[in-house]
Amino acid sequence: MSKDPKVQPRYTGIPTFMRTPYAPTLEDIDIALIGVPFDGGVTNRAGARHGPREVRNQSSLMRTINQATGVAPFDLVRVGDAGDAVPDTPFELLAAHKSIEEFYEGIKAAGVMPISAGGDHSVTLPILRALAKDGPVAMVHFDAHCDTGDFYLGSKFHHGSPFKVAAEEGLIDPKKTIQIGIRGGVTDRDIWKFSYESGMRVIHIEEFYEMGLNAVIDEIKQVVGDSPVYVTFDVDGLDPVYAPGTGTPEIGGFTTFEAQQMIRSLADLNIIGGDVVEVAPPFDPSGVTALTGATMMFELLCVSAVSLKRQRGDSTSCENGG
Amino acid sequence: MSKDPKVQPRYTGIPTFMRTPYAPTLEDIDIALIGVPFDGGVTNRAGARHGPREVRNQSSLMRTINQATGVAPFDLVRVGDAGDAVPDTPFELLAAHKSIEEFYEGIKAAGVMPISAGGDHSVTLPILRALAKDGPVAMVHFDAHCDTGDFYLGSKFHHGSPFKVAAEEGLIDPKKTIQIGIRGGVTDRDIWKFSYESGMRVIHIEEFYEMGLNAVIDEIKQVVGDSPVYVTFDVDGLDPVYAPGTGTPEIGGFTTFEAQQMIRSLADLNIIGGDVVEVAPPFDPSGVTALTGATMMFELLCVSAVSLKRQRGDSTSCENGG
Amino acid sequence: MSKDPKVQPRYTGIPTFMRTPYAPTLEDIDIALIGVPFDGGVTNRAGARHGPREVRNQSSLMRTINQATGVAPFDLVRVGDAGDAVPDTPFELLAAHKSIEEFYEGIKAAGVMPISAGGDHSVTLPILRALAKDGPVAMVHFDAHCDTGDFYLGSKFHHGSPFKVAAEEGLIDPKKTIQIGIRGGVTDRDIWKFSYESGMRVIHIEEFYEMGLNAVIDEIKQVVGDSPVYVTFDVDGLDPVYAPGTGTPEIGGFTTFEAQQMIRSLADLNIIGGDVVEVAPPFDPSGVTALTGATMMFELLCVSAVSLKRQRGDSTSCENGG
Amino acid sequence: MSKDPKVQPRYTGIPTFMRTPYAPTLEDIDIALIGVPFDGGVTNRAGARHGPREVRNQSSLMRTINQATGVAPFDLVRVGDAGDAVPDTPFELLAAHKSIEEFYEGIKAAGVMPISAGGDHSVTLPILRALAKDGPVAMVHFDAHCDTGDFYLGSKFHHGSPFKVAAEEGLIDPKKTIQIGIRGGVTDRDIWKFSYESGMRVIHIEEFYEMGLNAVIDEIKQVVGDSPVYVTFDVDGLDPVYAPGTGTPEIGGFTTFEAQQMIRSLADLNIIGGDVVEVAPPFDPSGVTALTGATMMFELLCVSAVSLKRQRGDSTSCENGG
Amino acid sequence: MSKDPKVQPRYTGIPTFMRTPYAPTLEDIDIALIGVPFDGGVTNRAGARHGPREVRNQSSLMRTINQATGVAPFDLVRVGDAGDAVPDTPFELLAAHKSIEEFYEGIKAAGVMPISAGGDHSVTLPILRALAKDGPVAMVHFDAHCDTGDFYLGSKFHHGSPFKVAAEEGLIDPKKTIQIGIRGGVTDRDIWKFSYESGMRVIHIEEFYEMGLNAVIDEIKQVVGDSPVYVTFDVDGLDPVYAPGTGTPEIGGFTTFEAQQMIRSLADLNIIGGDVVEVAPPFDPSGVTALTGATMMFELLCVSAVSLKRQRGDSTSCENGG
Amino acid sequence: MSKDPKVQPRYTGIPTFMRTPYAPTLEDIDIALIGVPFDGGVTNRAGARHGPREVRNQSSLMRTINQATGVAPFDLVRVGDAGDAVPDTPFELLAAHKSIEEFYEGIKAAGVMPISAGGDHSVTLPILRALAKDGPVAMVHFDAHCDTGDFYLGSKFHHGSPFKVAAEEGLIDPKKTIQIGIRGGVTDRDIWKFSYESGMRVIHIEEFYEMGLNAVIDEIKQVVGDSPVYVTFDVDGLDPVYAPGTGTPEIGGFTTFEAQQMIRSLADLNIIGGDVVEVAPPFDPSGVTALTGATMMFELLCVSAVSLKRQRGDSTSCENGG
Repeated sequence: MSKDPKVQPRYTGIPTFMRTPYAPTLEDIDIALIGVPFDGGVTNRAGARHGPREVRNQSSLMRTINQATGVAPFDLVRVGDAGDAVPDTPFELLAAHKSIEEFYEGIKAAGVMPISAGGDHSVTLPILRALAKDGPVAMVHFDAHCDTGDFYLGSKFHHGSPFKVAAEEGLIDPKKTIQIGIRGGVTDRDIWKFSYESGMRVIHIEEFYEMGLNAVIDEIKQVVGDSPVYVTFDVDGLDPVYAPGTGTPEIGGFTTFEAQQMIRSLADLNIIGGDVVEVAPPFDPSGVTALTGATMMFELLCVSAVSLKRQRGDSTSCENGG
Repeated sequence: MSKDPKVQPRYTGIPTFMRTPYAPTLEDIDIALIGVPFDGGVTNRAGARHGPREVRNQSSLMRTINQATGVAPFDLVRVGDAGDAVPDTPFELLAAHKSIEEFYEGIKAAGVMPISAGGDHSVTLPILRALAKDGPVAMVHFDAHCDTGDFYLGSKFHHGSPFKVAAEEGLIDPKKTIQIGIRGGVTDRDIWKFSYESGMRVIHIEEFYEMGLNAVIDEIKQVVGDSPVYVTFDVDGLDPVYAPGTGTPEIGGFTTFEAQQMIRSLADLNIIGGDVVEVAPPFDPSGVTALTGATMMFELLCVSAVSLKRQRGDSTSCENGG
Repeated sequence: MSKDPKVQPRYTGIPTFMRTPYAPTLEDIDIALIGVPFDGGVTNRAGARHGPREVRNQSSLMRTINQATGVAPFDLVRVGDAGDAVPDTPFELLAAHKSIEEFYEGIKAAGVMPISAGGDHSVTLPILRALAKDGPVAMVHFDAHCDTGDFYLGSKFHHGSPFKVAAEEGLIDPKKTIQIGIRGGVTDRDIWKFSYESGMRVIHIEEFYEMGLNAVIDEIKQVVGDSPVYVTFDVDGLDPVYAPGTGTPEIGGFTTFEAQQMIRSLADLNIIGGDVVEVAPPFDPSGVTALTGATMMFELLCVSAVSLKRQRGDSTSCENGG
Repeated sequence: MSKDPKVQPRYTGIPTFMRTPYAPTLEDIDIALIGVPFDGGVTNRAGARHGPREVRNQSSLMRTINQATGVAPFDLVRVGDAGDAVPDTPFELLAAHKSIEEFYEGIKAAGVMPISAGGDHSVTLPILRALAKDGPVAMVHFDAHCDTGDFYLGSKFHHGSPFKVAAEEGLIDPKKTIQIGIRGGVTDRDIWKFSYESGMRVIHIEEFYEMGLNAVIDEIKQVVGDSPVYVTFDVDGLDPVYAPGTGTPEIGGFTTFEAQQMIRSLADLNIIGGDVVEVAPPFDPSGVTALTGATMMFELLCVSAVSLKRQRGDSTSCENGG
Repeated sequence: MSKDPKVQPRYTGIPTFMRTPYAPTLEDIDIALIGVPFDGGVTNRAGARHGPREVRNQSSLMRTINQATGVAPFDLVRVGDAGDAVPDTPFELLAAHKSIEEFYEGIKAAGVMPISAGGDHSVTLPILRALAKDGPVAMVHFDAHCDTGDFYLGSKFHHGSPFKVAAEEGLIDPKKTIQIGIRGGVTDRDIWKFSYESGMRVIHIEEFYEMGLNAVIDEIKQVVGDSPVYVTFDVDGLDPVYAPGTGTPEIGGFTTFEAQQMIRSLADLNIIGGDVVEVAPPFDPSGVTALTGATMMFELLCVSAVSLKRQRGDSTSCENGG
Repeated sequence: MSKDPKVQPRYTGIPTFMRTPYAPTLEDIDIALIGVPFDGGVTNRAGARHGPREVRNQSSLMRTINQATGVAPFDLVRVGDAGDAVPDTPFELLAAHKSIEEFYEGIKAAGVMPISAGGDHSVTLPILRALAKDGPVAMVHFDAHCDTGDFYLGSKFHHGSPFKVAAEEGLIDPKKTIQIGIRGGVTDRDIWKFSYESGMRVIHIEEFYEMGLNAVIDEIKQVVGDSPVYVTFDVDGLDPVYAPGTGTPEIGGFTTFEAQQMIRSLADLNIIGGDVVEVAPPFDPSGVTALTGATMMFELLCVSAVSLKRQRGDSTSCENGG
């Protein structure tokens, strides 16, 4: 009973994220893994409210060392599962966002870096409201949609608009924002014009494949520079075969291999947090979406751990945690 | 191309409810089959927003005559698919309810009887607001839950409370309300006390099996009498093996055969409308829940057609439509 | 109730193709979206009879503008859902084909361009019999199989032979036919010899990847030229991960992204119609095949709309419909 | 490698029916277990062509002794898997029926009793044509539908009509035919009038529950008497929760327990063969339908073995095979 | 963040059993809910190793009060989730059993009553070895199989034999053991003879329905009397429609309603612990088996809490915890 | 009944591998297709015990000629289904491995080349023990994991260690072993150090994509040379979208197209046998994994047949079997 859960059979034990210790008090941790079980902002298929539960479940398949990069995040920093940012009032979008924001204010106040599992993409807005209180941050945004839309079905706030609001509220700097994987039909020719007019770098999937992976990675680094940066990964940026369980799938996306290479390139940035959103288990009969989400969260944890350690000026012998 | 869709292969054609004509203008119909794709009131698993779509799909398996009772509803009255009561503002529960209410005000104004497919059970409230404007009606309510709860997660309005609100607003007469199939755990010993204190007849599943089906049917008739009555059928009243695709399943419920017998007994009542709610397709991999929902809707249509014809004083030779 | 269904939530309303108006009389439309629910020609797994129903369902996720190309098909031409070409006698293959042919004769007589969702691939034969009455047309054919086979299980007509018959009947010009994505095992070394001997251009998947996407696109244009051309897209041309729900899957196919690029390149051709066939929902637990099929149909609609407008000599300011 | 497959782990080995020896030559067997992979007669959802494959698969869970009755069929008679009655021409209903008939003529000529797994219910017609060549037999028929319908979609022969044809052809004696479990909607008030007018005993599900199981069993025996009798079990006679994977499910049917009691009561009859039909694996995600079908086939085998032994005048010490 | 998880939305938070506090140190709890993720003893389909994970997940749907009996277990006694009895050596059956036994020795030493979720039924043996060290206990056993078999596939220890071994080791008193729901085929006429010869009361499903529920309940009480009793519930005792996700399903079992009534009748017995075993999530696409397992565990907790309080001589005002 | 099963409809007949004759006596065959239904060595999700059954099922979709290479394996050599290597004692890993080894000793003694379907990867060890008795062989190994790990959960033998043991026992020559597709997290930085230290060529997926497919193929040939070589294909080497049904999926793998090219390149090697392992049907709702496994087995058969014929000095006119 005293063994490290991370080395026991994967199907055993209570599924915290990546089998890290449950740490709701935030004491003794540097990075908090957090669930945000809210999908009141979806415009089509709900289900992302169950995302944190299933990502935790599948995250038992994660291990402790990133074989490709050598990073051992749990050796670099202290990581815990801080539980869920439960929206107290799930029937009211604005109030729900408010309670999520308050949860993350606690995270920020504790000096802990959050890596979150959504929930729909609307939850990134209250997270940013808590994290970017002191000024706009840069953002790396993987997605099929720019999510800089306007009023829809009577609401300014939904999972298609968080980054327009975030920019307007001064939480992100559009000129230091890059959006990758954009595609699919639109109902309004100007739906993403806010992205363009505000100066965001938008890489449609066609341009993505014309540029090639390495050029995209260079572009990310150039756009962000050394600004503090938030990384948000919507699983619908991936092709639906890698993430069928999501609310608004769009065929023709990038692969998990490409996503892994892009995330791994972020270790040099000054990451302040990140999230993986829109995993919707009811539409995921084989569980592959949650497994993908959990692995993306692990990749994000690896680069965030390296970045955090460097930001703190900690340059002990082995950066990889070995 | 000119054939009656109801006699073509079931997998063909655009799936209106029971392959009835699409009749959004409500002209020339006596009974409207309506979808209410809203699940913003659920407290656990969303998905009933997709209910109307899948119930329409499976309703292609319905035919034109009820073999057990001989009723041929399409011969008795004119039936059409009036489309969906689309909530204009799905992100706001109260506004969504308002737009549903307005849709049903149009139905009532047209003198058409509605039989609806939800959506979560919260949608019965705005339907009743439209239908029972002139005074409280009786109600026959099949469900695992009384749905007379109070504030939950910051809202008075959700799928666990519509009938408390409806009674308080004078839409239903509690003393003429009967609730059948109640069971499952509760978090508050007094959660359904409103049902008891207001005088509703509550038949828990244990009492149901002690009484036997015939006694339950008698009790329904005695409670309702000749009052105008609304019939609401939550598929979670059924045992989950008949309706796994629902938001809050509770094991140990009644069977579809028992449900059919109960609904068929309602032909003598003065029905003003009814609904089948809480079919949640994302949790229904085999489609059996939607098939069950569609069949319950057909059974409800049969007794409603007989009742409507009788209420209108129409007593031509064959009541069954033969 | 009077709103455009295309801007309402995707899970609402009766699912016509892409939420276009139901237009069985063919009045006031330029392009008809049509279902052909027949799978009596399959040699292995049936299920494509349910294809039109599920493609209609998933097509609610389509929007009005093709973001990659800027084409807005519903602004360029008038598009409607003409319902299903229902085979009156599904138990008899030849008679079923006959009734499908008659349906399409009506389409042709009305001067409407058909874009269809099958059904198995045998249905393309009666469609061509109606459309190509006046002489052979060119054909662009995406598939894992050449479908130019001979008698099988006692029948000359099945989903593995339509294009041999079509060529023999003078409906398609083999020398202006290109078949892309061919692969999988065969039971007869000469099974596709008709393709070769008649002069069709056959691109096996191995050659596809050796040539590269751009060369394949060039080849399509060179083979077809400015002849009137029919485009037929069998979803089993895609790798089965993009289209598991199909009758005869063959691993190792092209991707949806590649398919999109190829279809988008067809706008310069003189398209007379097209189809997306072999979506078999019973083998598609996650729904991804129907979503893929719907999106391919949308891509096909976009280029067909541009082509039709150009063929009609209509060159108003913005070709994209903006 | 020399062990009896029936005592090895159930997931091992090549799945013959109940792990009996493969016996296509019919030598040395008394009862043949046979698959009839044909579903060209279905009016709605195809898939029963895959029934034999999956029933064989799940039949590995069967064992050698019926615990409830003590019957050990493999000790009483010699049982083998005779393979499939493959329709040579699956695209043509009549020709397919003909090739099935010929297969069963071989079975009859060999003096072997067939117990079959369909396939759709239309296959019972060619089976009877082979078995009842010498005069009409009695029939016990479990089903939701009487299957005595007329022309449908242009064909007299389909899975809704075999027993009208069988009676007309003198294969079954309507007065010695009993149909149990009938229910569901109909499109024609007189659809089953042939059953009534020809003298079949029709027990609707409502009457079934009014009579009670024992009275139904008595009725079966009274109708059949000591005539040679064929037993046909359509899994859609069961409630769909026991058999969701079927072409035309009708809610409100009998249970597997009730079915088992009814079949077990048939040991005293003079059985000449039987079948279990309409298992459609593509609609059976959990496999429960195939398991149910396999178990019904085993129950049928048990009573058939007892009956056959008795008919042959073989009354050695232990009738149960012990 | 400080709220009681049991009153937050069910899809939120880390899924301990019934959202009780995680209590691996066993301090401050009276009853421990425990997972035993081991299925190395199954003879057919593995998967029960994932049972505890999914039962925990679905147990979020449980609430705090048993509406039928009024029992509020969490008010009567202190309940916690003690984590999993992880087998250290899952590749070796005997060693795995040993490590499970040691886990339960810790439970017993702490004076805590265990209620467990398996795992396959072989795990009940090591549990009994720990709990019944001081002498044989009575046992109430719900199952389709007696599980008193002998050597199979080279091993005396597997999920078909635990109770023969338990009786031989003096852990259970066969004369105070009752086995309910037995059915299905057998490969050996004497497979369960140990049950009979040792004096266990075996109620086959046929006798179950002949006796009726009330008589069965009386029989349970008579067999057990006031001896300390262990309750073991194999979900395959239920009909497979209620529990398709299990290793060796047998059609024709009892219902969840009947199971609930039987378990509720056990409150007067002197319960020392219990378990719910054989939930195998990989075979449970709709999740209904895990929901059923979780509810059975809750029912078992309710009667165990009442029993424990009474055994401890604690007879404060309201036995139900109100 | 006398027809070649390989030319009948794919859904018919008893599913031997690729519809070859059942040949348990090994007479008259050159290559044996064998199932190894054992998964007692998995460290996470069991299910591969059902692999042979489902691979046999899906292998009905295979045909007789490899269209890409022209190889007709059934014309080149005599191929049969030799049944399953059933582990007599599935509860004991070492004894199970022993009985598998004995089965393959029989295969080797008969001079037959085995191509097997697992089962988990631990079964390759006993296969090699039988085949490589006379000295170490070369090995081509497709996998996400090197499977050269050490003790885990108390056992040296499990599906993560077979090739360390095989090398230590002198069954494979590490310097002639190449491992392709390695990726995923690890819990021990040195987990695969045995591969490196013993001289195996390890190609991680990142290196795989840097090198390109042709260079990888060259490397395979260079490492193996003309040594006798065993080919082992773990389906988790593929990206999980191609093989979701497996025990330890790792995102970011190679495609089936790439796998096909690599296997096809092996025809020049001196193949002595091969296997496809880790197909776990319970986690494969769409069946795509079993289809992929069956196709990989067919590709392996094609090159093995060519290789065997060449090794036997048989150089008749057409190497492809035409």
